[in-house]
Amino acid sequence: MYRPEYLEKFTREVFEKMGCSPEDAKMATDVFIAAELRGYSSHGMIRIKDYFQLWQAGRINIKPDVRVVHESPSTAVVDGDGAIGMIAATKSMQIAIEKARTAGTGWVSTRGSNHYGFAGYYSMMALKHDMIGISLTIANPLVAPTFSIEPMLGTNPISVSVPAGKYPPFVSDFSTTPIARGKLAIAAKKGEKIPLGWVQDADGVPSDDPDIITKGGSMVTLGGTAQHGSHKGYALSAIVDILSAVLSGANFGPFCPPSLAFLPVKEEKVGEGTGHFFGAMRIDGFQKPEVFKAQMDKWIETFRAAKPAKGHDRVLIPGDIEREREAQISKEGINVIVPVQKEMKEIADFFGIPFEMN
Amino acid sequence: MYRPEYLEKFTREVFEKMGCSPEDAKMATDVFIAAELRGYSSHGMIRIKDYFQLWQAGRINIKPDVRVVHESPSTAVVDGDGAIGMIAATKSMQIAIEKARTAGTGWVSTRGSNHYGFAGYYSMMALKHDMIGISLTIANPLVAPTFSIEPMLGTNPISVSVPAGKYPPFVSDFSTTPIARGKLAIAAKKGEKIPLGWVQDADGVPSDDPDIITKGGSMVTLGGTAQHGSHKGYALSAIVDILSAVLSGANFGPFCPPSLAFLPVKEEKVGEGTGHFFGAMRIDGFQKPEVFKAQMDKWIETFRAAKPAKGHDRVLIPGDIEREREAQISKEGINVIVPVQKEMKEIADFFGIPFEMN
Repeated sequence: MYRPEYLEKFTREVFEKMGCSPEDAKMATDVFIAAELRGYSSHGMIRIKDYFQLWQAGRINIKPDVRVVHESPSTAVVDGDGAIGMIAATKSMQIAIEKARTAGTGWVSTRGSNHYGFAGYYSMMALKHDMIGISLTIANPLVAPTFSIEPMLGTNPISVSVPAGKYPPFVSDFSTTPIARGKLAIAAKKGEKIPLGWVQDADGVPSDDPDIITKGGSMVTLGGTAQHGSHKGYALSAIVDILSAVLSGANFGPFCPPSLAFLPVKEEKVGEGTGHFFGAMRIDGFQKPEVFKAQMDKWIETFRAAKPAKGHDRVLIPGDIEREREAQISKEGINVIVPVQKEMKEIADFFGIPFEMN
Repeated sequence: MYRPEYLEKFTREVFEKMGCSPEDAKMATDVFIAAELRGYSSHGMIRIKDYFQLWQAGRINIKPDVRVVHESPSTAVVDGDGAIGMIAATKSMQIAIEKARTAGTGWVSTRGSNHYGFAGYYSMMALKHDMIGISLTIANPLVAPTFSIEPMLGTNPISVSVPAGKYPPFVSDFSTTPIARGKLAIAAKKGEKIPLGWVQDADGVPSDDPDIITKGGSMVTLGGTAQHGSHKGYALSAIVDILSAVLSGANFGPFCPPSLAFLPVKEEKVGEGTGHFFGAMRIDGFQKPEVFKAQMDKWIETFRAAKPAKGHDRVLIPGDIEREREAQISKEGINVIVPVQKEMKEIADFFGIPFEMN
């Protein structure tokens, strides 16, 4: 187990050694640590090596000029200038929140970015401003559209956070696939098989191999099969792709620049870097915040009181599990699996900074 | 088969006989006919009886004052004043489009409405203004959250329409369940069984009975099972519920006023009527429209060219099937199943207007 502060210092030092300003290094690090604290280890330390390798390959800009290139009162396109995704994304969400202050809502489509990690981090930024936050991103093309065997889309997550009153906020954060890719990476590192219905092989046949996407296979969209609505997951994923990457002028769909070493950089570019989409909506653009929050409390009470199915003792509100994990992890510490510790140790040795394996 | 003009005249006359102004009757009718033309018979003539029964029960306001009750430059809450849903919804989407003209985007949360029918009708209204359109609504509480057997949510559809250049627009319109409720109604009327994975019985066990929701059962959320991501469908459906009904002050979740005769009106109210949510985003709030549309064309070409799985000859773009159906139905006429024709005949006889059964 690691204390959050220990991993925070390590991660910040890694980004500073890469050449980031202290402010930028902290901005990126905050997202990695928040992911670990919420129990999203698939967006935590396991991704440090991805960024290290992208940096070694010269595929990220360490001194980026993240800026608005087109705007209206409630909208903007932000060019991330090849930044670390967490930096382009945090700054983009800040701009969405600023726009919402005057226009009621703010909507930012970002290009020229990289993998931004934990989607919910950005939607949750809106909460303390009494705003609803929205965060979408494209990701490595590993997911086949319905009726296809060709990976064209990412796991393209959607996160929406909504403030409540006396209860903790509603925080949803989910990929538009049956599972997040990180779950495959974790299963692969642990050497475990996965349930059928998460991925298909190169012929479109369901597979239990978490490594199948490195062998010509692909993930499928939420719904799993066409009869059970995978075309809805495909449409959702396509909406995320269009808002994040077509609206901003990034590399959409299969052209998304890979954040993974085993995926080659596409020769053809159709835009600049990776794309994201952010939204912030002032509650008081619609209602008095105190009225809304009281109603959200009632919403939460109503859904918590739904009759559980046999074998379950409660019905969850989106964000419950992650918040409970955060309380536990903050107390007990962050567990980093040994293969990831080894990667961190190699990076530490490369930069000559301290890192102790557990 | 019926000519669209014949059903248009019939539907308009029904609403006028109920007491609607000619303008309102036409506004509502346009949505019903558009649904039939796109092949969504589950939102077409089959729903006339629902509105007829709501009218008989005094549950809709035939002379509504649909109006903005709270606003900011890019947002509004619209009170539908108990209107027919298609009227409250069309007027709300018009307001979202007007707001987008000056603020870049427009977002309207609507309360005091009723069942609005074909979600895609409203998102498509944005297309001719070079805007992206968004349309969400709550619906009859028939869907259980993950780990629950209690119907708390509607099929809560999401529709997003995006303009393209030389190709037809991207038009997505899907429920956040494996299937739309209308599919159950159609199967029930035809006396057919349904595939497992669409609904569960009162104990939470999968059922093949399309009538199970009238017998204590419930629909499930997109994903089908928790292992395959039904909690993501639950989160999506919850987001639709919150934006449509909590943000507007409508009756959220299980309190949604039923549009179906077999569902009782809840004694407890938590707001006004049914809720919807609409968005309009000006393309030129983000990019030059001609650049965006050329990129959307490239997006469409890219996804059309995805390698099909065995047994499939092509990969679809959202909206393809409905557009092809519309071309065919416009030519061949609208097929109305006999049980629905009988309902229409009864309504025609009630009002003393003509309707010929095929």
